[in-house]
Amino acid sequence: MGILRDRIAVESADVEAKVPLAVPTWQHEPMSTPDTTTGILFTDQYQLTMAQTYFRKGLHERPAQFDYTFRSYPDYGTHQAGYCIFAGLDPLLEWMETAHFGPDEIELLAGQRTSTGTPRFDVDFLDWLADSGHFGGIEVRAVAEGRVVHPLAPLAIVTGPLAMGQILETALLNRLNYPTLIATKASRVHESGRGRPVLEFGMRRGPAEGANSGSRAALIGGADFSSNVGVSHAVGVDPKGTHAHSLVQAFMALGGGELEAFRAFAESYPDDCILLVDTINTLKSGVPNAITVFGELRAAGHQPGGIRLDSGDLAYLSIQAAKQLNDAGFEDVSIVLSSNLDELAMWQIIGQIEEEAPRYGVDPQALIGRLSYGVGTRLITSRGHAALDGVCKLVAIEDKGRWVPAIKVSDSPGKIPTPGLKQVWRVKDSRGYSTADVIATAEEPPPGNGDLVLHHPNREGVQRTMRAADVAGVESLLEPVFRDRKRLGSPTIAEMRERRRADVELLDPGVRRLVNPHVYHVSLTQQMKDLQRRLVAEARSKQPPAQ
Amino acid sequence: MGILRDRIAVESADVEAKVPLAVPTWQHEPMSTPDTTTGILFTDQYQLTMAQTYFRKGLHERPAQFDYTFRSYPDYGTHQAGYCIFAGLDPLLEWMETAHFGPDEIELLAGQRTSTGTPRFDVDFLDWLADSGHFGGIEVRAVAEGRVVHPLAPLAIVTGPLAMGQILETALLNRLNYPTLIATKASRVHESGRGRPVLEFGMRRGPAEGANSGSRAALIGGADFSSNVGVSHAVGVDPKGTHAHSLVQAFMALGGGELEAFRAFAESYPDDCILLVDTINTLKSGVPNAITVFGELRAAGHQPGGIRLDSGDLAYLSIQAAKQLNDAGFEDVSIVLSSNLDELAMWQIIGQIEEEAPRYGVDPQALIGRLSYGVGTRLITSRGHAALDGVCKLVAIEDKGRWVPAIKVSDSPGKIPTPGLKQVWRVKDSRGYSTADVIATAEEPPPGNGDLVLHHPNREGVQRTMRAADVAGVESLLEPVFRDRKRLGSPTIAEMRERRRADVELLDPGVRRLVNPHVYHVSLTQQMKDLQRRLVAEARSKQPPAQ
Repeated sequence: MGILRDRIAVESADVEAKVPLAVPTWQHEPMSTPDTTTGILFTDQYQLTMAQTYFRKGLHERPAQFDYTFRSYPDYGTHQAGYCIFAGLDPLLEWMETAHFGPDEIELLAGQRTSTGTPRFDVDFLDWLADSGHFGGIEVRAVAEGRVVHPLAPLAIVTGPLAMGQILETALLNRLNYPTLIATKASRVHESGRGRPVLEFGMRRGPAEGANSGSRAALIGGADFSSNVGVSHAVGVDPKGTHAHSLVQAFMALGGGELEAFRAFAESYPDDCILLVDTINTLKSGVPNAITVFGELRAAGHQPGGIRLDSGDLAYLSIQAAKQLNDAGFEDVSIVLSSNLDELAMWQIIGQIEEEAPRYGVDPQALIGRLSYGVGTRLITSRGHAALDGVCKLVAIEDKGRWVPAIKVSDSPGKIPTPGLKQVWRVKDSRGYSTADVIATAEEPPPGNGDLVLHHPNREGVQRTMRAADVAGVESLLEPVFRDRKRLGSPTIAEMRERRRADVELLDPGVRRLVNPHVYHVSLTQQMKDLQRRLVAEARSKQPPAQ
Repeated sequence: MGILRDRIAVESADVEAKVPLAVPTWQHEPMSTPDTTTGILFTDQYQLTMAQTYFRKGLHERPAQFDYTFRSYPDYGTHQAGYCIFAGLDPLLEWMETAHFGPDEIELLAGQRTSTGTPRFDVDFLDWLADSGHFGGIEVRAVAEGRVVHPLAPLAIVTGPLAMGQILETALLNRLNYPTLIATKASRVHESGRGRPVLEFGMRRGPAEGANSGSRAALIGGADFSSNVGVSHAVGVDPKGTHAHSLVQAFMALGGGELEAFRAFAESYPDDCILLVDTINTLKSGVPNAITVFGELRAAGHQPGGIRLDSGDLAYLSIQAAKQLNDAGFEDVSIVLSSNLDELAMWQIIGQIEEEAPRYGVDPQALIGRLSYGVGTRLITSRGHAALDGVCKLVAIEDKGRWVPAIKVSDSPGKIPTPGLKQVWRVKDSRGYSTADVIATAEEPPPGNGDLVLHHPNREGVQRTMRAADVAGVESLLEPVFRDRKRLGSPTIAEMRERRRADVELLDPGVRRLVNPHVYHVSLTQQMKDLQRRLVAEARSKQPPAQ
């Protein structure tokens, strides 16, 4: 077995344990942003102007409820996701613990002026913000990070004072949409890699400081390791990398060559030596030089690591490199592939290897079994679909001691939200697969007795009945995660990965398919459908006649 | 004139001045990341492992030079950029002033283990990092932020100790690639909007904490305002917003309606009142209710602001809304469009208005002249092209007191870098347009006398001669921006915007075209071409014979 393969005991508690965790000493070197850009002012201006309007009307502390949902799976153009992996929750909740309107923030807002030159925010409102402008009154119920999730069913439900719920909206969307998008892509890449190690290499082309959220989400969703040093330490996963072309170039410029560069690297890392072989010519220079160095390492009692291919036809080159390595007696060293990889590119490379390797006397399955994948830009930018369309909508507000459902009757029926307080169940069928996420009103008992009538969330008349005998299990998806300005738990990345693994295994293989996946059912119960119908009708009846 | 139009005196020093700048008190509320993820460990693992190899070989403090370039303009699929806007530099340099290996970082690295359980980083190397692991020895020359830039010509040149230059690479790429991508998109959106205000609304779908870099880059590249409160204050631009559907929903749920919501908002902001009119029905409810409120505002001596359309056929709805507003005597209030806008969508909407408005008795140019554009997801994610392909390559290293050029001979000719120390000139032609960016060796005098032979950077034999009479001006593009661990200047966003405006105006209109733009020339001088040829030949001659 190659070193990389041995070491990359995916998600092993062992690896997690031996990497020192970042000490949360809280910043001395921020990424160039003074705090006022990362604190509570990390929000949209209209949240603040609306908050003042609520304040003016005495509605600012009125209990309200907001649902976070996404509307559709990522569609990458030539391929589509049939499920998503939820990520970003814990960093959001951590931020909520401390974010508040401090003196700096109040001072900035006090300086804003209207078009006539008067202060945009009045003193009484700013006083209230200074006093109550934090998330102490907010409660969040949410799906656990790492879980498989689907459109339209709430992934997080925020309850609390209307104004602070409104101000939270931007950060919540920002900190959940992108990580969920990346974790989803990572899961697809992981599936495509057939269990071989996936290394997240995207920082350099990632979205500035957002690359940290991207690396973390990738590690939750399916990347086994990341090159991102800071984030890897923060989550307790060993950071990984090989070396760059510059190492070889530096030795060449100084009168040496690729072989000298490889030897220098091997000397530093005799038992973890992965050599990048395409600086000059992969098959004529890189691989032969790597073989020379591997021979020297072996002679000195070390286990050679592997090579990395970073350009050209990766399927062809990996076959030819494997042949050279095999002929030299290095059947076990790893072959790390990188350069524009994503789930489709990997799928194609594996297919090409299966087809072509035998022609060159290389066992395709043995070759596929020694590959690792360095996946960069296309993972951290979710190539083909760069944004999850998550929204956070007001669904209820308290009036005279009772919750009143809120609704928005859009011209486009696909955008009608599910109103009111709710719960979400995941239903397993008799095959043991997850078969539907069901959105119910808050007061309904979980299904158990009798048939289950499931309504399409926004296509009127589309429904199906699940017979009681076919319901093998029902699980509640939302759990309390934030209360009294504190997170209720701090799950580890290892736990999130385990949830992801378990949840993905419960999906019908058709839903996991990379291209044209089966559609997973997200449905409303009869009670919820009735409520939605009633509110839509009421809202429509309030429309004024045509002018 | 509508309020929004009046107020959005684009890039006016006036607006800049009246917005309170963020006080750089340096963080008390980080976005959930302990410092070790945003400090010097914001890098790829292989930079550290290579640095140790350099250290082991005594090369770690060898002066080296790295060039930052991008390889190609963004290609959005159905349309393509013919130029880019450089952004992200100042935040990068600010980070470089403080980033260093402190005790926390050293402790984390000291805890890393190889596959055999030994420390990955040795004590002597860690001691060196603790002592010299900062950017004090690094000098940077760069193009100024906000300027028009093109592929292959260096935008930043880093000179300094090999190991620290290597460690800087990841952060440099990360902090320049994404902002340049977004500033470029923003410039296109700005062009498409024909000078009407562009509001950046992307935070909620932006890349987590990277949204801050995205908002800032958008403000440099072409957005007049942003909804991002923190970043707007940090750069001194008034944050902008309207209100959300939730405001209307809240009033509806409490037994009121859209009109009550509008009145409440108008009461808070009588002189800046932009009303979102699509919560119930745009033309039957939203616009009529807005007109009612505008009438009340006017009667009370205020200037009504405008309406926002956020769904449906924005061209058709803006015509019909304008008709209703005009008929009610509100010819001047703004119409803000939002919902999936980008440069193509805006182009199409404007074209449709020009064609259809006369049919409804609406003056198309008057309507186009009262529009503003709220551009969100597609701007902050650079829809269609989600990553700039910037690279940072070793181009020279010092040996025995002189600089030795470094080169990488890739299998793909398009990836051969321009070697050695260099300077970059921008050449103006006799029409007054910028016509070429020219990469020269460090020692060449600027062109002035005699014809200029311009070689294609990587297509052998492709060249042209620019006659001396056609060269109307030559400007050096790179300037020193970082030395002795300090930025050499702190340009304002207003200055960056002015550079962008001036540079874009110097482009041939064909280069500015949204679709299939003309190709701007980036060329090598004769001396630089000769050097590149010699080094490629030398490198190729060193390749070992086929095995």
